[in-house]
Amino acid sequence: MGQQAILGQSATIFASNPMTGETLEPAYAGGSAEEVKKACQLSWEAFDRYRETSLETRAVFLETIADEIEAIGPALIERAVAESGLPKARLEGERGRTCGQLRLFASVVRAGEWLDVRIDLAMPERKPMPRADLRQRHIALGPVAVFGASNFPLAFSVAGGDTASALAAGCPVIVKAHSAHPGTSELVGRAIQKAVKACDLPEGVFSLMFGSGREVGAALVADERIKAVGFTGSRSGGTALMKIAQQRREPIPVYAEMSSINPVFALQQALESRGDEIAKAFVASLNMGAGQFCTSPGLVIAKKSATLDDFVQVAGEALKESATQTMLTQGIHEAYQQGVSRLSANNKVREVARGRVGEGPNQCQAGLFLTSADDFLNEEELQEEVFGATSLIIECRDDDEVTRIAEHLEGQLTATLQMDDADIDAARKLLPTLERKAGRILVNGWPTGVEVGHAMVHGGPYPATSDSRSTSVGTAAIFRFLRPVCYQDLPDTLRPEAIKESNPLKLNRLVNGKRES
Amino acid sequence: MGQQAILGQSATIFASNPMTGETLEPAYAGGSAEEVKKACQLSWEAFDRYRETSLETRAVFLETIADEIEAIGPALIERAVAESGLPKARLEGERGRTCGQLRLFASVVRAGEWLDVRIDLAMPERKPMPRADLRQRHIALGPVAVFGASNFPLAFSVAGGDTASALAAGCPVIVKAHSAHPGTSELVGRAIQKAVKACDLPEGVFSLMFGSGREVGAALVADERIKAVGFTGSRSGGTALMKIAQQRREPIPVYAEMSSINPVFALQQALESRGDEIAKAFVASLNMGAGQFCTSPGLVIAKKSATLDDFVQVAGEALKESATQTMLTQGIHEAYQQGVSRLSANNKVREVARGRVGEGPNQCQAGLFLTSADDFLNEEELQEEVFGATSLIIECRDDDEVTRIAEHLEGQLTATLQMDDADIDAARKLLPTLERKAGRILVNGWPTGVEVGHAMVHGGPYPATSDSRSTSVGTAAIFRFLRPVCYQDLPDTLRPEAIKESNPLKLNRLVNGKRES
Repeated sequence: MGQQAILGQSATIFASNPMTGETLEPAYAGGSAEEVKKACQLSWEAFDRYRETSLETRAVFLETIADEIEAIGPALIERAVAESGLPKARLEGERGRTCGQLRLFASVVRAGEWLDVRIDLAMPERKPMPRADLRQRHIALGPVAVFGASNFPLAFSVAGGDTASALAAGCPVIVKAHSAHPGTSELVGRAIQKAVKACDLPEGVFSLMFGSGREVGAALVADERIKAVGFTGSRSGGTALMKIAQQRREPIPVYAEMSSINPVFALQQALESRGDEIAKAFVASLNMGAGQFCTSPGLVIAKKSATLDDFVQVAGEALKESATQTMLTQGIHEAYQQGVSRLSANNKVREVARGRVGEGPNQCQAGLFLTSADDFLNEEELQEEVFGATSLIIECRDDDEVTRIAEHLEGQLTATLQMDDADIDAARKLLPTLERKAGRILVNGWPTGVEVGHAMVHGGPYPATSDSRSTSVGTAAIFRFLRPVCYQDLPDTLRPEAIKESNPLKLNRLVNGKRES
Repeated sequence: MGQQAILGQSATIFASNPMTGETLEPAYAGGSAEEVKKACQLSWEAFDRYRETSLETRAVFLETIADEIEAIGPALIERAVAESGLPKARLEGERGRTCGQLRLFASVVRAGEWLDVRIDLAMPERKPMPRADLRQRHIALGPVAVFGASNFPLAFSVAGGDTASALAAGCPVIVKAHSAHPGTSELVGRAIQKAVKACDLPEGVFSLMFGSGREVGAALVADERIKAVGFTGSRSGGTALMKIAQQRREPIPVYAEMSSINPVFALQQALESRGDEIAKAFVASLNMGAGQFCTSPGLVIAKKSATLDDFVQVAGEALKESATQTMLTQGIHEAYQQGVSRLSANNKVREVARGRVGEGPNQCQAGLFLTSADDFLNEEELQEEVFGATSLIIECRDDDEVTRIAEHLEGQLTATLQMDDADIDAARKLLPTLERKAGRILVNGWPTGVEVGHAMVHGGPYPATSDSRSTSVGTAAIFRFLRPVCYQDLPDTLRPEAIKESNPLKLNRLVNGKRES
């Protein structure tokens, strides 16, 4: 933790290669309760200094982390391949995304819009009461606990989006490494430590801990020095952290991205004009990364028709051909098998097709199932996420039933419309419901593939996330870790730079309700 | 509810005049569980249409509410005086503030900055992957339950800041009227209903319910159609609502403004140069509205010295002279008496002075007490808010002890520095702590009196509020009731106006990370 590597006092963790089942050296010792406290204390001691570093210092720090990750070279990719079973090219792309994300946040820090400075100038002559000088800026919430996700060992892990946005906001970060990729985590953690040192920042700005979510993770979230939590993972894991956070003496925000089945609405004209193409693209999206994406299309909703029958058949054929892929961990593979078995065993559900049976351990055999709208509406369990390459098609009698399905859905990260121009009216009718249900609405694309930009929303109503007011991908993710402070009549010499009279940071400030030009 | 006045099925409520104890006609019937459901259903049916009303329609609606409240005339003030015991001039001022606030939010709605539109344009030629067109705007969260506060029967009640900001965001509102001023609530509620009708909006945009917090209030917060809660009141009331909101199938945000003792740090040079003046101004602030302000200065922290002794003496003399004032309700008066008795009975606390004993019921007898830093640090109960005109002075040995007191404090709405130029270094040392503890930091002012502007923060870390990322006063309060939605490759004809290619609303949009000029 901080700059020190401490040999943990708790149970040891070994990674395992999901492609072979073999255990990977070395052992990683889980942190004890004492070590959690120590990491929290270090981050607390770093907080006041780190949150007031200059925008340039913090931007350079984020860029240095990116440089240091790249400097690890092929060793990082090799270890990540061994620990995750993901293909080399995918992990190289993910590294590019991770470093690009850090550099994007550096540009966001420099631009300073996130400070959201608002100034109401004094009006000493105002009647009946004079107005004081009021200046608002945003400051960092405090040390943040980040939980690495298994399915993106780089982009949603130690130096992923949660860490990048929290560090950008001025929050020290303590990462609880995912036990599926401790070696990858260690390599990235050391890269961040190097950047902390190179930038002459307090060591508590970043710590990395190993251990179980139930012990180390729970202790982190319960520690009073932690002021926010970033998490990507299962619904049960996320809700457990929410509960701990709410039961603290001082409750804190938890940003948990949890569970989404990402409905695809295949509208009638689109199916008629290009059903085969949509079917194949759907199966390709479903198979991406063995379906282990938060945005995997787990549901297709369409009106019952001969065209839909054709779509189902083409999709089924494509699925049968799909090559198997290794899943991330044995646990995920087992949960996937159980989820598919539940669907198979449900007599309201028809199996359309299964993918190839793979050789070796932890192979994801894709699955495509079909049910009626009535049955979907009546069986809550059909709405449960099956994490992996399995999807369910829902046949509806008419447009009204399509809308009823949409209304029945829980909160989602995404909702997709496959539509042609002739479907515009049907789409217009669905949109208000989709806006209430999802963080992102796509037309004629596929939800897998989340762009890291300024306009992205990777969020959505519960249970997609614990806080629909936020996004965990894209530059707006920084707002999760900030709070406003108002300064009334503070002498200019005491004012932080963002609100000084001379505007030394050249920020675009809201003055008396108008934008400074 | 909606446009109908429904005779409730539950226990009846009578207001009582706190100045005389007499019961005020008429009776107000509390809503039943059935009626809560009906109000929620009406608001749900209004939601999709109301949230997509044009900016102009919504702005005019807010202005019409203000006009209709003014149109009630003296009857509103008379009833509010009778129900609250507050002076006529104060309530007239509060009405001005309430209507000004509605009109300010109308201007905010028109300006449209709250939509926070971000556009990342498509890059079809980008390698290795093309970029889709991504457009983000903010939409209303859903119907909001608002709880009227007792201490501002107009500005924090039926048409107060929570209602104004939620309506501005596009959320229908259901207000649970505070039982201390049902008549005032009814008059304002009818004014809003008139505005709903005049603006041809769906009736479910606004409903008003009477009844107890434990029944009607709890049922409202538990209803799945309610998507956020605004509350100003006690810590126990706020935390009870937080609990209900978190235990729902879909947890929702609660914005509860609860408990703050608003520390005043009287720095050494300021005390020496103008201790008498500060003492008198402090007592004036403490006595405002019988101390029944969320921002009443309940704590003064200073270094032990002969100068402080003088300050204490002058403040005590001023307090003894203070005229008594009627408190808002019998319940508040009883709780105040108990709070003061706890301080009096504590052998670590010395009574400096008590104000005059009033005649008639519910008179607030002001109180000033003193304790040592050691004792304050050791006795948690000394940090509890005593709602009313009582304050506690803490004597510290040195600057370090002042800082320790600051660090020991729970989250606050405000923290105040009384300082001279020669205190700049001491103030600079305290600032990082105060920023972590409070939503607003004042210099040489008094925390009572909360400006409704763009830069105001009326918020702060728990338990001052349930969500330190927000403010309940000022235009930034609108952000509490919004969430982002991203539209990917949506055809322009389906795009909401805010994100259309031609920018018909002339918004200042972030395009590819840069501001459109």
